[in-house]
Amino acid sequence: MARINDNFAKLPAGYLFPEIGRRVRAFSAANPQAQIIRLGIGDVTEPLTPAIVAAMHKGVDEMGVRATFRGYGPEQGYDFLLDAIREHDFASRGVEIGRDEIFVSDGSKCDSGNVQELFHHGATIAVSDPVYPVYVDSNVMAGRTGVLGNDGRFGGLVYMPGNEDNGFQPVPPERAVDFVYLCSPNNPTGTVAGRAQLERWVAWARANKTIILFDAAYEAYISDPSVPHSIFEIEGARECAIELRSFSKRAGFTGVRCAFMVIPRQLMGEGDNGEPRSLNAMWSRRHSTKFNGVSYVVQCGAAAAYSPEGQKETMAQVAFYMDNARRMREGLGKAGFTIFGGHHAPYLWIRTPDRMSSWDFFDQLLTRAHVVGTPGAGFGPGGEGYFRLSAFNSAANVDEAIGRVIKAFAS
Amino acid sequence: MARINDNFAKLPAGYLFPEIGRRVRAFSAANPQAQIIRLGIGDVTEPLTPAIVAAMHKGVDEMGVRATFRGYGPEQGYDFLLDAIREHDFASRGVEIGRDEIFVSDGSKCDSGNVQELFHHGATIAVSDPVYPVYVDSNVMAGRTGVLGNDGRFGGLVYMPGNEDNGFQPVPPERAVDFVYLCSPNNPTGTVAGRAQLERWVAWARANKTIILFDAAYEAYISDPSVPHSIFEIEGARECAIELRSFSKRAGFTGVRCAFMVIPRQLMGEGDNGEPRSLNAMWSRRHSTKFNGVSYVVQCGAAAAYSPEGQKETMAQVAFYMDNARRMREGLGKAGFTIFGGHHAPYLWIRTPDRMSSWDFFDQLLTRAHVVGTPGAGFGPGGEGYFRLSAFNSAANVDEAIGRVIKAFAS
Repeated sequence: MARINDNFAKLPAGYLFPEIGRRVRAFSAANPQAQIIRLGIGDVTEPLTPAIVAAMHKGVDEMGVRATFRGYGPEQGYDFLLDAIREHDFASRGVEIGRDEIFVSDGSKCDSGNVQELFHHGATIAVSDPVYPVYVDSNVMAGRTGVLGNDGRFGGLVYMPGNEDNGFQPVPPERAVDFVYLCSPNNPTGTVAGRAQLERWVAWARANKTIILFDAAYEAYISDPSVPHSIFEIEGARECAIELRSFSKRAGFTGVRCAFMVIPRQLMGEGDNGEPRSLNAMWSRRHSTKFNGVSYVVQCGAAAAYSPEGQKETMAQVAFYMDNARRMREGLGKAGFTIFGGHHAPYLWIRTPDRMSSWDFFDQLLTRAHVVGTPGAGFGPGGEGYFRLSAFNSAANVDEAIGRVIKAFAS
Repeated sequence: MARINDNFAKLPAGYLFPEIGRRVRAFSAANPQAQIIRLGIGDVTEPLTPAIVAAMHKGVDEMGVRATFRGYGPEQGYDFLLDAIREHDFASRGVEIGRDEIFVSDGSKCDSGNVQELFHHGATIAVSDPVYPVYVDSNVMAGRTGVLGNDGRFGGLVYMPGNEDNGFQPVPPERAVDFVYLCSPNNPTGTVAGRAQLERWVAWARANKTIILFDAAYEAYISDPSVPHSIFEIEGARECAIELRSFSKRAGFTGVRCAFMVIPRQLMGEGDNGEPRSLNAMWSRRHSTKFNGVSYVVQCGAAAAYSPEGQKETMAQVAFYMDNARRMREGLGKAGFTIFGGHHAPYLWIRTPDRMSSWDFFDQLLTRAHVVGTPGAGFGPGGEGYFRLSAFNSAANVDEAIGRVIKAFAS
């Protein structure tokens, strides 16, 4: 009795970031004088901006007075936030999104882990390789895969390679699938899909009746005005796509927790007897059954990121991180590294020198330069031979890290 | 293609609280002069207390300064909150709980909806009737039930009746099940399980290798010192139980969002080949894969509820609501209503007059007294013939509501 969900046992025991933490702690203990610079986990380092801080203080004050206290809020989010999202993230780019198409949540990690609940237990799923691990692991836990093979791939999943030949932009798979995860600007490769690539995905999804999860958590880092920020800028996407957005990297909210999902009203899946089913209605039911809305104070802060001051401040923060990325690209490029990404995302995807394994490069970078990054193999077998460096740190630390890497590795 | 999870279609379209909202809006529109008093949804009305407000302000300030900014936190929660929980909720009652046994979350609704992911797709589930709907609906969505029968019950679920004969305290079912949901103090009936009843549940669960989810979201409302606040006060519970706790009703956090789940290290389920599996390790994996921790500012506020001032202030708020409950019990009792609960919970469970249906009584209460409550039928077929009133409101509104109900219904 008490039979458990043994799909969990299919997941390998050593998760990426705990293993990184273990190796860093061991090195630090043996080398207490080493000043380690962390460019590994994609976590922001700059504080919340003044407009956001002020809005959160105001929210806290309101919660302390009976007349303005807020208990349970609308599960989808407060109108003041929904309207700010509609106007600034979508209408400003010519995309009309309804209030009832936006679901505010406590994070894109949660949304991207939970969204698979909408799909059939036997649905076929396609993911890129390398990939943000949550897409894979959440489907493993839900029992949609076989076991992990010796090739580092789970049985039953469709893997779409991202590699140097395709510029780390996977192309639609040959076999039809029910659901595909896309992430652009991409974590981990830092590359971005252009308009033509998105158009190809939308056309393919409509032709195959596939639904796309488009994870745009890093859209604020796009610097080329011709690159769409939303998949809904592509004609026809409302019939085939769900989009994820996050305040984590756009407004420094990794420790504040706010994100949202957009599910168009006309997006339909297929029920067991072939009937069309509204994904929006299903998620609304899921959201109101298993979720209770985002903290009012957090929503106040998120809305402030759209005020004139909030936009100016948060965009300056994004520009600051992207200037870090530029100096990393240029410095490491001059030192002989082959680098991808980093133009429209805070991540650089670096080919390891001499085809070294990505964990070996991790160890070398740690021991020779005291810099922590993320081994590409942690993002799937397609990440082997590559390494992710994040641009989230102070300018001084980034410059110091560049100097150390050049000194240790320059050929 | 895009085959969806059609278990969602098994859920009835009309969810309880939206239907209540619809009827109240229709009445208000037709009777704009009516001053409606809401004792329906169990939402607190009093503001956050000064100690909590101060702690949240401090948290916001820290997030606005680079040196004290916090990005991604530990998924399980910050040690400062885990240690406050261990000391004040458990050690103070003689129960030792480890830091790694506590998982801080954004709400008990989320936890009680997500916890079923730990169990086998074919696991048998027992719920009380009447019941907090999330336990049922989350299992329906996950495909562990058949369809809704004409008796108002889902096929495949084991229902444990709570009725006047057993004082609304269900007893263990005769057939063995994998997982059982208990809620005490109970939502919706407002009744509480005493030590002997909990001992019976634990003995039964251990004998049958069943796991109990013990939802103690309302434990702060227990007024009898002999009643356990935690199932872990019962010998042997660490081998058979998971416990849910929430700051929503204990500290006015319905709009702030913080709760936690306790999963003892030695709690084991059974894998597909009969191997023991640690539920704590599984939830840790689930939590770190599909969740990213609770907002730092929210955790600051939750920890402040345990400070000396925070405890005094929040316990005064609980006492205030319970004084509302007492006057409701006494007033409505004198008026001839038969009332259960309300001694150790902010809910009164009232037998409808003349065996009226619970929705008919809802309509009568609304039209004759302008008071909104919750029809018992919304909590399952076992709730038919009963009605839930919540004690969450101002003293003046509660007294006004009592007077109106007496005037409208006194026999």
